Amino acid sequence: MDYQESDFDLTNYLNDKKELINSELDKIFRNFVSSSHIVKAMEYSLMAGGKRIRPILCLAATKAVGGNLESALPAACAIEMIHTYSLIHDDLPAMDDDELRRGKPTCHVAFDESTAILAGDALLTLAFQILSSSVKIKESEALIWLNVIQVISIAAGYKGMIDGQMKDIISEGKSLSLDDLENLHALKTGVLIEASIVSGAILGNGSQEQIKQLRIYAKNLGLAFQVTDDILNVEGNPAVMGKAVGTDKNRKKSTYPLIMGLNESKKFATNIINNALKAIELFDKKADPHRAVARYILKRKK
Amino acid sequence: MDYQESDFDLTNYLNDKKELINSELDKIFRNFVSSSHIVKAMEYSLMAGGKRIRPILCLAATKAVGGNLESALPAACAIEMIHTYSLIHDDLPAMDDDELRRGKPTCHVAFDESTAILAGDALLTLAFQILSSSVKIKESEALIWLNVIQVISIAAGYKGMIDGQMKDIISEGKSLSLDDLENLHALKTGVLIEASIVSGAILGNGSQEQIKQLRIYAKNLGLAFQVTDDILNVEGNPAVMGKAVGTDKNRKKSTYPLIMGLNESKKFATNIINNALKAIELFDKKADPHRAVARYILKRKK
Repeated sequence: MDYQESDFDLTNYLNDKKELINSELDKIFRNFVSSSHIVKAMEYSLMAGGKRIRPILCLAATKAVGGNLESALPAACAIEMIHTYSLIHDDLPAMDDDELRRGKPTCHVAFDESTAILAGDALLTLAFQILSSSVKIKESEALIWLNVIQVISIAAGYKGMIDGQMKDIISEGKSLSLDDLENLHALKTGVLIEASIVSGAILGNGSQEQIKQLRIYAKNLGLAFQVTDDILNVEGNPAVMGKAVGTDKNRKKSTYPLIMGLNESKKFATNIINNALKAIELFDKKADPHRAVARYILKRKK
Repeated sequence: MDYQESDFDLTNYLNDKKELINSELDKIFRNFVSSSHIVKAMEYSLMAGGKRIRPILCLAATKAVGGNLESALPAACAIEMIHTYSLIHDDLPAMDDDELRRGKPTCHVAFDESTAILAGDALLTLAFQILSSSVKIKESEALIWLNVIQVISIAAGYKGMIDGQMKDIISEGKSLSLDDLENLHALKTGVLIEASIVSGAILGNGSQEQIKQLRIYAKNLGLAFQVTDDILNVEGNPAVMGKAVGTDKNRKKSTYPLIMGLNESKKFATNIINNALKAIELFDKKADPHRAVARYILKRKK
């Protein structure tokens, strides 16, 4: 399979869409009646400079199936809130105990532990409030939104993202098989990426076939992202990445390079990206953002 | 206003409805594909013997407006999940640091802290999964369910229950004014009780007027529950209550007896229960469970 590099300007696209999402999240917070202590903590973490990859993939999926980008904005914002809540809780002392996130103090360091737990809870709850803002929803659209809430709550829940985090904690220090590792990553990050893309496609009124193919794209994209993350931890440039490398090895963490070797890991990443690209072959140029993101993952230096 | 004591058998009613809710929650967990570590923790806390007051009030509201009780069961279960998640997180070491709940070790004691955080997150998320199980929802009902998700997510969120818990933590050791105290309790427990009743009324296709009156009933009921809780902490019988009394005084906690005196607190409780009963005067005998619950709160010994 040979894919021509398109002249699609990914950097420009990502910046543009990130701004759109940031301004929408800002709008949601500006509409809050009062800036209580809990709201300050929610906003601190939500506006801490995330790449907004999940909501961007959501909006892109709406466009890819021929829908109107605006219609997916509430879902895009809700997904970023869920992603942010999961980071806040994962960073807690009882979990990964991280003090820095994107160069800034984590929520429980900037505020305190109880505030961080509640801010996470509040962002998760706010996501569903945004998804069900029925004031603006017509009866004919209500079932679509319920479907989206279903997709997102399953992905974020006990057999999705939360199970992934649980398994990650339980398996710490243990060596994993390739299957276990794949399953862990699929749960921890893959399912929410998949839900982002599927939600966008549903809200753009995509066909069953379109949704099916985008789902395959999403699964492969999520996996490739993890494999290249592991590769960068071996041979990345700390100055470019803005974080230390070699940490996985020091922590004896199960990674793709450790289990299958560095060269095989690179081949594997290339293969799954090709699978992702193949899945969306039937789409026209409106799916170029997805194609560009997939290609970028293989080339990324950070 | 003189209310005749009806011959409604409240004990029997509460037991009957509690069984219905427990069997429905059980059914939800039996349908889970695998009993993973996280599911065990969720189930441990959810099935730890709660009184199921919120879901019972939800089902009763559906009946009161002339609806079919079964139609509100998913909402009743979801609300109990949200209530349970809030208890799990409130009990955490970083929050109230409680080791026992209903005579059993709290979730973080029975499992560990990270599991308890995630089990809470998972129950909150599962609530919204249950509320959006659109497979069984007709298009004409979808808007009603979205409305219920909106009501519940607002009540559980940053300007409802979570703000209450945040304010409770912040105000610890400070003396509160009566207004602050009322606001705190309204947020911490009142709003979810209100959402339970309003959700039930919406799902029973209640009229705007019926919903409005039930909302007033709920607000007064929630407040009365708190006032009598404070009174019991002063003059209750530890043997009957199954927990220590006098703890509020020892902790210098702001309570109604402390601020307005014991006798005034009792008069206040009677007044607000009368307000609750007056609000539902327009309802026929289908609202007898609500009337009986309101009267019970004044007489309760535990």
